Amino acid sequence: MRAEIIAVGTELLMGQVVNTNATFLSEQLTGLGYQIYFQTVVGDNRERLNDCLSLATERSDLIVLTGGLGPTEDDLTRETLAHFLDAELAIDQAGLEKIIQHFTIQGRELTDNNRKQALSLVGGQTLTNPTGLAVGDFYQTPSNAYLLLPGPPSEMKPMFLQEAVPLLQDRLPQNNQLFSRVMRFFGIGESQLVTVLADEISGQTNPTIAPYAAPNEVRLRLTAQARNNLAANQLLDSLEKRIMALVGDYFYGYGEENSLVKETVQALKDSHATLAVAESLTAGLVQSTLGQLPGVSEVFVGGFVTYSNEMKQQLLGVEEATLAKHGAVSRECAKEMAVNTRRLTGADYALSLTGVAGPSEVEGKAVGTTWIALAKPDGTVQTQAYRFTRDRTYIQHSAMMNGLNSLRIELLNKK
Amino acid sequence: MRAEIIAVGTELLMGQVVNTNATFLSEQLTGLGYQIYFQTVVGDNRERLNDCLSLATERSDLIVLTGGLGPTEDDLTRETLAHFLDAELAIDQAGLEKIIQHFTIQGRELTDNNRKQALSLVGGQTLTNPTGLAVGDFYQTPSNAYLLLPGPPSEMKPMFLQEAVPLLQDRLPQNNQLFSRVMRFFGIGESQLVTVLADEISGQTNPTIAPYAAPNEVRLRLTAQARNNLAANQLLDSLEKRIMALVGDYFYGYGEENSLVKETVQALKDSHATLAVAESLTAGLVQSTLGQLPGVSEVFVGGFVTYSNEMKQQLLGVEEATLAKHGAVSRECAKEMAVNTRRLTGADYALSLTGVAGPSEVEGKAVGTTWIALAKPDGTVQTQAYRFTRDRTYIQHSAMMNGLNSLRIELLNKK
Repeated sequence: MRAEIIAVGTELLMGQVVNTNATFLSEQLTGLGYQIYFQTVVGDNRERLNDCLSLATERSDLIVLTGGLGPTEDDLTRETLAHFLDAELAIDQAGLEKIIQHFTIQGRELTDNNRKQALSLVGGQTLTNPTGLAVGDFYQTPSNAYLLLPGPPSEMKPMFLQEAVPLLQDRLPQNNQLFSRVMRFFGIGESQLVTVLADEISGQTNPTIAPYAAPNEVRLRLTAQARNNLAANQLLDSLEKRIMALVGDYFYGYGEENSLVKETVQALKDSHATLAVAESLTAGLVQSTLGQLPGVSEVFVGGFVTYSNEMKQQLLGVEEATLAKHGAVSRECAKEMAVNTRRLTGADYALSLTGVAGPSEVEGKAVGTTWIALAKPDGTVQTQAYRFTRDRTYIQHSAMMNGLNSLRIELLNKK
Repeated sequence: MRAEIIAVGTELLMGQVVNTNATFLSEQLTGLGYQIYFQTVVGDNRERLNDCLSLATERSDLIVLTGGLGPTEDDLTRETLAHFLDAELAIDQAGLEKIIQHFTIQGRELTDNNRKQALSLVGGQTLTNPTGLAVGDFYQTPSNAYLLLPGPPSEMKPMFLQEAVPLLQDRLPQNNQLFSRVMRFFGIGESQLVTVLADEISGQTNPTIAPYAAPNEVRLRLTAQARNNLAANQLLDSLEKRIMALVGDYFYGYGEENSLVKETVQALKDSHATLAVAESLTAGLVQSTLGQLPGVSEVFVGGFVTYSNEMKQQLLGVEEATLAKHGAVSRECAKEMAVNTRRLTGADYALSLTGVAGPSEVEGKAVGTTWIALAKPDGTVQTQAYRFTRDRTYIQHSAMMNGLNSLRIELLNKK
């Protein structure tokens, strides 16, 4: 089943907004089992949008439109689609009531332009907007289906996931419902993962395996076609078992919205343990990444950014002799940073990171050289050397991810 | 002059990569004076790419292609374009020598696939790749121009800016060269800026004004059409003067690649002053953002992340009485954090940030409530209260930007 995405908006063509909607919809539709052959961006222009609809209708089964459902005169996607399909537009009563309620609460006057956002294609299915005012539409002809979604990602995503996905699944051939599972891996690159899983991937029919790489991690999306959830889970469990036998050492968690930092914080919560951090080359990246998670204060107390050698001595009490003899990028310095941070903060665990972020070498040590230490509740310290590559930002990110992972592994092993 | 962008890559259609290239190129081409009517994404497929080229050639003057110049069999943009244009491909000697040199240094064997990256369209202009191996191309027919760029943004952007821009400027009508200047503003929202500048914007013909919003800042791109740089600068200077008269208080710097943190670090360097930071709600965000800049160690020494109240006492020596009486989110606490950080680190300036990042209120203080303090070399402390809005991430970012800006303003006023 071929699908394509048309994003409508002059702001996209001016380069003012990044088209993340196309990325989200492509990944989601691929996961459902659609094949995406094209993405198009077109401005808020009747004629050019109409041309895009003609072309898309010839070459794709499903056409997904986003954007141009707002209240202003520029917003003409709905009208253009109605004209293209020779379909009428009528007010969706539930949608209009929501708009009226919104304006009443805000104490603002309702204009005809605002009413426009409740217009829906006669003969189609109206999609409600859980987080905004413009309704969406799903309209089928004998040969094609058209999905009409709002432009703001905060409205488009919930409408797609809650309203559109069931309709799109119904369109796929019978017995062909798709069920997905996302597995996340750290410490193995995409190309290595794909190489190790080559037999599984080349032989895949049902379930399928799709790898997605992100900085310092790889996700696998396993997708099974089955009559129901139970049958799908049997297929997915079996594939997962084979995958885990090959690369289970690198697996850290499930789910699209998961992350290594979330899993690490969860492991701390499960262990009722607290963490403090001392950062040199990462300059606060580990701590600010922890700080992005609501409720992290339960397990993360704080720590130090000791960017200069003087601060390593003054704030953390690293010995001058250590710095003179071994340098700041050394096992000995990392160890003292971690041990002293644990002592100064009283946290159960203290993580320290010291290294050469670049662009120039330090103490004769190459860019990317990094030491990470973890001071533990029993008073012992675990240290590990790394040699990260690429640019400054990537080196700092690699250090953070490896530091968090060493803590996560330690907490899991203790259980 | 109409332009459109074709991004080639199956990874874009799978939703594995966000098409930031289209955004960058759209903004740049718009700035040069081209009108972008379409962006397309197509997979690594000869036939479908050929169809896209046919359509684009009919409807646009300039066709910009990115992606698919790599060494693998999937990469077929160059071959497909050559076939479409009925042009020959030949090895670019300078490009090949760069590839050979790269493989020699790496100690890896050169294959025919790698040589392919030095192929160039006969009759076109080869564009060198400052940060990678694949050469680019600029090819003109009587009716159209084709610009061929690599896919990785780290290669595409330098090639576009250094190699393609002069060629694209030459294509524009005589006397119509375009010259741009980017002005950056902090502390004023896009809608407010546009409202204040309404007369300038509505009356614009030459130069033009285009606003671009990013989190916690707005950029204005001023573009003048003129015979030469001197004439353009006169037009731009005059417009800039009028803009500065209206919103000069919010202006902080020039340039596409600039940022508030860069300007703040530069102000520290100009003042030969050092900085330490104590962060509560931002949890290291200020320090890690500083840490992203190479060479920041000249002025940034480090600091504290005192996420819990205990850490504010233990690490920073904030008085228990202060926390009991005023709470952690208070002028008094921010003040002690800054003063004590300056004392403990010996830095010239110390910045502290304490507030409610959310999602829940703290000490009866609403989400977004924030105090920022700056301890100065003369022993005085400046404090300021804020009430930031939106989500946790945005509140933390707002706090960081306002903290850095207060330091920047202080350093500028001292000069």
